[in-house]
Amino acid sequence: MASTGKVLVYGGRGALGSAIVDFFKSKQWWTVSVDLASNDNADANVVVGPTDSWIEQSEKVTHGVAQVIGEDKLDAIFCVAGGWAGGNAGSADFVKSADMIWKQSVWTSTIAAHLASKHLRPSGVLQLTGAAPALEGTAFMMGYGMAKAAVHQLTKSLAGNKTGLPSDALAVAILPVTLDTPMNRKNMPSADFTTWTPLEFVASTFYDWTTKQDKRPANGSLVKLITTGGQTELIPA
Amino acid sequence: MASTGKVLVYGGRGALGSAIVDFFKSKQWWTVSVDLASNDNADANVVVGPTDSWIEQSEKVTHGVAQVIGEDKLDAIFCVAGGWAGGNAGSADFVKSADMIWKQSVWTSTIAAHLASKHLRPSGVLQLTGAAPALEGTAFMMGYGMAKAAVHQLTKSLAGNKTGLPSDALAVAILPVTLDTPMNRKNMPSADFTTWTPLEFVASTFYDWTTKQDKRPANGSLVKLITTGGQTELIPA
Repeated sequence: MASTGKVLVYGGRGALGSAIVDFFKSKQWWTVSVDLASNDNADANVVVGPTDSWIEQSEKVTHGVAQVIGEDKLDAIFCVAGGWAGGNAGSADFVKSADMIWKQSVWTSTIAAHLASKHLRPSGVLQLTGAAPALEGTAFMMGYGMAKAAVHQLTKSLAGNKTGLPSDALAVAILPVTLDTPMNRKNMPSADFTTWTPLEFVASTFYDWTTKQDKRPANGSLVKLITTGGQTELIPA
Repeated sequence: MASTGKVLVYGGRGALGSAIVDFFKSKQWWTVSVDLASNDNADANVVVGPTDSWIEQSEKVTHGVAQVIGEDKLDAIFCVAGGWAGGNAGSADFVKSADMIWKQSVWTSTIAAHLASKHLRPSGVLQLTGAAPALEGTAFMMGYGMAKAAVHQLTKSLAGNKTGLPSDALAVAILPVTLDTPMNRKNMPSADFTTWTPLEFVASTFYDWTTKQDKRPANGSLVKLITTGGQTELIPA
């Protein structure tokens, strides 16, 4: 069966990234994963070196994606790479944590934005990943909050004038609270899972945004994912 | 004459940093500068390596400051390091610019916050430097906006509970529009200088915040410096 569209998933080997690859594959879409390791379910992979600098990662990913995409255009770029670390200004590993989270969230988001400037089709979707708590101060996870606040502000910049993105592109960030991943279930076994956002809901929402103009949030939106009793609402911050 | 207080200036060799060192020296205060080069007017200097990683810079500065401070406490830590770069997501040097600005603004701010957790006295002042435009999207300077948004969110985190700072510390960010520096006069010779904020005004404001509790803005404030007709107002964002 011929592919009906093409998407790139930055962090395509992670729990959410894998769910997105699987969802779009189930719709016969072509997918490319960018991650530290290959996702064998994706049609193509660009593998990132763990010790690259920000500039090296940008150059290698830009080159690698150009090779697999060629002159084709992407319908959407989803950046769901990221991680978490706690700690305040007094923590011995404050800077180490902030450095790690910055790499996982902000390097990937900026490189995804740069890829969008080159390979996204007009009216395509660029999705980044923020965090609802970072709308305010986050004393117990200072490095995490800073990185996510940077992603939020980047999303607003990408909805401005002369952003470098193709015409009518949608720039949007999702702000999850807790995603229902195997890792989170393992780390928080006694939590109330009915307040966690299912990965398939996120993937299906991205599919709607990509394929249906009237389902899209406003350009530059920060969209909170609020799950109650197993039902998730999309709430602009 | 004996010193009456002790302050640290991160970026103490820059235009604003030098003005702060000079102002506090004129009040017979002891000053330490942290920068890429020494400020000979400061009482002590900690010099940063230009090629250090974030973690290396943090470790070296933390070690260097501990050596010059010993068991004494600082009345204030001012972080006025920073720079500027334009560019949007499509710029060839987007990531390179974002990387540079991140190092100049966010590395220094996080390390200043960590120093405050170790060396600031109770009720001391930790000042960081944001930017008024980064309160919204900044399409023509995406890397700059992201870094400053991160500093804004860090400032809010530092005003929370269990921040790692000493009791009753003030965390505050200034959000300048344009500072009246020699470099800015050189780069924008035909601008209206009466809308630029004089460096001595900033230094004198920091002196007031450090020495007079009743002059302080609220903890966690983002304080815009708005200059009109040569007069500067402090306006909480």
